[in-house]
Amino acid sequence: MAGGVGSRFWPASRESRPKQFLDILGVGQSLIQMTFDRAKLLVPVENILIATNGKYKSLVQEHLPEVLENRILLEPSRNNTAPCIAYATLKIQALNNDGVFAVLPSDHVILKEQEFVSKMNQAFDFAESKEALLTLGLAPSRPDTGYGYIEIEGSKQEGVNKVKQFKEKPDLETAKTYVESGNYLWNAGIFIWSAKSVINAFNKNAPQIIETLSADLAKLNTPEEQSYIDKVYPNTESISVDYALMEKSDNVFTIPAEIGWSDLGTWNSLHVYLEKDETGNVLQGDFLSLENTNNCLIRLPEGKKAVVKGLKDMILVLEDDVLLLYPKEDEQEIKSVRNKITDTAIL
Amino acid sequence: MAGGVGSRFWPASRESRPKQFLDILGVGQSLIQMTFDRAKLLVPVENILIATNGKYKSLVQEHLPEVLENRILLEPSRNNTAPCIAYATLKIQALNNDGVFAVLPSDHVILKEQEFVSKMNQAFDFAESKEALLTLGLAPSRPDTGYGYIEIEGSKQEGVNKVKQFKEKPDLETAKTYVESGNYLWNAGIFIWSAKSVINAFNKNAPQIIETLSADLAKLNTPEEQSYIDKVYPNTESISVDYALMEKSDNVFTIPAEIGWSDLGTWNSLHVYLEKDETGNVLQGDFLSLENTNNCLIRLPEGKKAVVKGLKDMILVLEDDVLLLYPKEDEQEIKSVRNKITDTAIL
Repeated sequence: MAGGVGSRFWPASRESRPKQFLDILGVGQSLIQMTFDRAKLLVPVENILIATNGKYKSLVQEHLPEVLENRILLEPSRNNTAPCIAYATLKIQALNNDGVFAVLPSDHVILKEQEFVSKMNQAFDFAESKEALLTLGLAPSRPDTGYGYIEIEGSKQEGVNKVKQFKEKPDLETAKTYVESGNYLWNAGIFIWSAKSVINAFNKNAPQIIETLSADLAKLNTPEEQSYIDKVYPNTESISVDYALMEKSDNVFTIPAEIGWSDLGTWNSLHVYLEKDETGNVLQGDFLSLENTNNCLIRLPEGKKAVVKGLKDMILVLEDDVLLLYPKEDEQEIKSVRNKITDTAIL
Repeated sequence: MAGGVGSRFWPASRESRPKQFLDILGVGQSLIQMTFDRAKLLVPVENILIATNGKYKSLVQEHLPEVLENRILLEPSRNNTAPCIAYATLKIQALNNDGVFAVLPSDHVILKEQEFVSKMNQAFDFAESKEALLTLGLAPSRPDTGYGYIEIEGSKQEGVNKVKQFKEKPDLETAKTYVESGNYLWNAGIFIWSAKSVINAFNKNAPQIIETLSADLAKLNTPEEQSYIDKVYPNTESISVDYALMEKSDNVFTIPAEIGWSDLGTWNSLHVYLEKDETGNVLQGDFLSLENTNNCLIRLPEGKKAVVKGLKDMILVLEDDVLLLYPKEDEQEIKSVRNKITDTAIL
């Protein structure tokens, strides 16, 4: 899934070049490239589908030259994750009625690849054998209010756990009780399931979506697929898969996974995730001089050099035509500052 | 005089495009253009000579298209102000043995043009009538330790005053006594004198310079001038005119002038000089959002837009490939930060 905008990472992330297409870690690879490389550890390249917004087709091709054009699913409208997953599911099922597949967000990071592969292979085995909606669940390291939580039925165990309930983003007090209980995991949006299980879940809990997309299934995997999708997709209900399926189904399972995951949702989470220097700074770029500067995240584009003194607890991002200088503690405001901007050229 | 580097205005001011060629006030004109326009209020365009470093010839021509090529004096080396003035003086004297002229730094600002013109005309009258080294003296508004001071003989009066002594940059305590006494003026480097007076002063106090440049005076104002100057100029003693002449001569005079002058020596002086918003900020550029930001000087190049929150008492300058973010109170360090940079491309 590579259709998001990543507006909390503005001004690095733009409508025209969202977060998944950025080298947000400063490692020489975009997040989607790293996600693709991880997917290749699980399945052959030709089995990897990229679902993205129509306008990012050429970005996907640029970042993932290995992907064939007919493996790129282009959404003609932003209808959240449920229609996107339904479309992919129908396309996969048309290719293989017994298909089993995973859904991977393209803009997250996972440090422990071997552990990821091991858990995913466990997950594929389970998903092949059972009609189930399976997720990887991440052990929460803090009472984060920015994630949905997965409550396990009974007490947590290695391998597959039955899920009691999906929980929406909690308030801080509730999040604390979740973390303390040990029976809650973060929902990272990584799903593993058979096409049949997904179709059945849609038919039961979000039938409008699957019906709308099923008007003429014979069009899928033909030259007419795109014009067909362009016509029907915008009519699907805009809803997240969590809300459409996961919270309503009773065959939900999770595999706890400690895989060094971060969704890198915001500049702060990047600051938390990356290694800091001895004064707590995360520095991306070329610094001529840096003095008396602590706990900052500073990101400069290539070719820019900085002299910085006396900056504390700030986010400083210079990106193309925009300079962002913002207190770290107020970073949740960045999305709304961005949304107030009327100059669409810089969004 | 337009040969300086303006290193305290880095990173806006660069070796390749020093301060005098910048629109440092954000008014649509460079400092040299404004200085040139002021000079035109005093003399015909063809009587204006521009003395600059050889490498700035094309910049001068770009900023001052009215100036004829043979009115641009190109210094082949940086030998401070005394050789520069000696060269100009010899060239003027060769054109007119009775010539009277003014020396104007090209990188200062003067707000009160009418007062400037009035004082300069007084000064020209005096300089024509007397063998004297005359300056404009600025009433000090604060005990600044960054300027030289002019001590008046007797008590200060309107019009021409005899100068007792030129004083080098004082320490703060001394500067305070100067300001309190009322008999000290700032030396702004604006001189008015006859060519004869200057030659005589050089012959008396800095003969090496005038002798070196006088090896073959017939070359001046001919096509061979530049190759001649290129040969002899680098051999002159590198010394300021204040030190070479003004501190040693006994025929020094000054006219006190309240002309809204600033040498704009540093970012702070620009902040002091320019009008501030209600929270003490001087803002040059396009701001998408500015919150909780006080007493800052922020300068963005055209085409860049900024979101800034939570910045206090800072200088923030983005210029081409360099970002400077520095506490206002530490701005005197900027010159040495710049001087430590080994990447000559950004100096």
